[in-house]
Amino acid sequence: MTRPALSLEQAVAEIRPADAEAMSRAAARQATLTKPPGSLGQLEELSIRLAGMLRTEQPRIRDKAILIAAADHGVVAQGVTAYPQDVTAQMVLNFLSGGAAINVMCRQLGIRQVIVDAGVATELPPHPDLRTLGIGRGTADMSQGPAMTREQALACVEAGIGLAQECVESGADLIGTGDMGIGNTTASAAITSAITGLLPEETAGEGAGRPAAGLEHKVVVIQTALEVNKPDPADGLAVLAGVGGFEIGVLAGVVIGAAAYGRPVVLDGFISGAAALIANAIAPSARDYMIAAHLSAERGHRVALEHLGLTPLLDLYMRLGEGTGAALAMPIIVAAAATLSDMATFDEAGVSGPADEP
Amino acid sequence: MTRPALSLEQAVAEIRPADAEAMSRAAARQATLTKPPGSLGQLEELSIRLAGMLRTEQPRIRDKAILIAAADHGVVAQGVTAYPQDVTAQMVLNFLSGGAAINVMCRQLGIRQVIVDAGVATELPPHPDLRTLGIGRGTADMSQGPAMTREQALACVEAGIGLAQECVESGADLIGTGDMGIGNTTASAAITSAITGLLPEETAGEGAGRPAAGLEHKVVVIQTALEVNKPDPADGLAVLAGVGGFEIGVLAGVVIGAAAYGRPVVLDGFISGAAALIANAIAPSARDYMIAAHLSAERGHRVALEHLGLTPLLDLYMRLGEGTGAALAMPIIVAAAATLSDMATFDEAGVSGPADEP
Repeated sequence: MTRPALSLEQAVAEIRPADAEAMSRAAARQATLTKPPGSLGQLEELSIRLAGMLRTEQPRIRDKAILIAAADHGVVAQGVTAYPQDVTAQMVLNFLSGGAAINVMCRQLGIRQVIVDAGVATELPPHPDLRTLGIGRGTADMSQGPAMTREQALACVEAGIGLAQECVESGADLIGTGDMGIGNTTASAAITSAITGLLPEETAGEGAGRPAAGLEHKVVVIQTALEVNKPDPADGLAVLAGVGGFEIGVLAGVVIGAAAYGRPVVLDGFISGAAALIANAIAPSARDYMIAAHLSAERGHRVALEHLGLTPLLDLYMRLGEGTGAALAMPIIVAAAATLSDMATFDEAGVSGPADEP
Repeated sequence: MTRPALSLEQAVAEIRPADAEAMSRAAARQATLTKPPGSLGQLEELSIRLAGMLRTEQPRIRDKAILIAAADHGVVAQGVTAYPQDVTAQMVLNFLSGGAAINVMCRQLGIRQVIVDAGVATELPPHPDLRTLGIGRGTADMSQGPAMTREQALACVEAGIGLAQECVESGADLIGTGDMGIGNTTASAAITSAITGLLPEETAGEGAGRPAAGLEHKVVVIQTALEVNKPDPADGLAVLAGVGGFEIGVLAGVVIGAAAYGRPVVLDGFISGAAALIANAIAPSARDYMIAAHLSAERGHRVALEHLGLTPLLDLYMRLGEGTGAALAMPIIVAAAATLSDMATFDEAGVSGPADEP
């Protein structure tokens, strides 16, 4: 049954806090499973969170999808990147032919991929596996004015909600976020600074490679963008419109949509973290559904995760994006749910507890 | 084609160093793949090591197996554990009925399991999925004398080599180690102290739970065992015979066997780390084939990995054993190999490199 797409306002209203009752039953169940209490470490906490999101003490993950949103950024005119803007479109074509890291990982790990042109500067040829949103062709240069209009910001968030809904309706019970966009670490650093209040020196890193005009210049460009746009940190759409990106807005919508439909959402790295900051500013209740896949090597990511209160599962010095961190975390998340749900209890297996217990 | 089982001496002689030529070609290939150089972090180094082990710059992992060896430890008589000795046999039965954490994970992650009674104190009923070695029924109390004879030590290492050989001959190109044995963190701490020279205070932890007689007592028991047996740290079989365990000897053999057959071996946590220390003492060339799955929360594991010069992939505060850390690391290892082997190159995909390059 396909429901009509939710507006942002409707989606935010649909988000329920994680089910405290299911979490409490899950914690009690963990204590009965045939292993020393706590011996599965972070997997146990995660399994209890999954129980809360999926509203059952025996959560199971059968179908996994990653949504990869690509877009361009007007701020590349300021020399903040190592790679030319054309690479965004070239990489989308690479995604469609299955040659990028995320495609290889998804094939190996049994994850569905949804590839989205959220606003690439170049027109891409139609392709059956490419979703095109038509909201814009690259943002404006945020160092000169707003990256996009508030209407565009709302449109990409709502598009993300719709895409999350499609994933859920086609069966996904775990949704990952991925990104592609030359210039998007600049936008993400600006978002992270805008929302956390930290200086760009603390949120900007080298991105895909040392910026053509140097890291100090990237910091200055972000400072300028924040001064020009002065986004209200409490207004997620204003931050997105001022210093964001179309793909970041779509991923913020995916996070809100996943939460509205009661599904865990696996955040990839820094760009997804910036999207999650926007989602959290718009709908703080969405945070209950967020899982941090990994800690990116990109400097600002740690700050973003700390602001969200999330502990990453992996720390492999990765900084590629595309959803690659989310893909690698998914088997661990599946295993966390499965151990909680499918392990035998001490009673079922006839295994003794610690010697000093009855 | 089934080859006759190798003796330990033959297996050690069969181990070739990792293929430097394949590693060099793999490193060159990494630089051509459609991603910023180094952006896959630890996966890139791992992929190059896999190329060296599998002797091709395009390594692929199709079939994964974990060998779970269980045995009992006479030293439990000293009150060094929280759980009673019967739990070892009970957990083997739990493995056979599929209710333990490792079984759930292997089912979810597509990993074959080989369950081995390497020396459980209680006689277990025959089961088609249980391999029984018949080398002994639990070790002797190492605080009173050697845990086993040198003949038994050699027998369990050679049994492990044979089991690795069976895995390889049935198609495995990635072999994991797992353990079960009440008391085996005491044996592993003794091995780690014997080989690294560190005091038991630095290698002993709480194991599956606070020992019945306290952690300080566990340290004293390990000190006593080391004083009674005085194993030569350069003689891996002597360390195993003095303060080891049957399952630890089998896993040391699995490591040596995997290396002899040119297959990567995924080390689980502290017990597997102790087995790897013994394997490394017997055959230092085996180290090229070792992959550290995770960092256990058990104190001595970090020390063991540092001695081996291995960097763990995961750090999830786990301390269960059974191979659960190895299971969770396997999808990451598969992905590391697949990205190296199957990603498109910049040329193939028509993607531009950094703007300042030709």
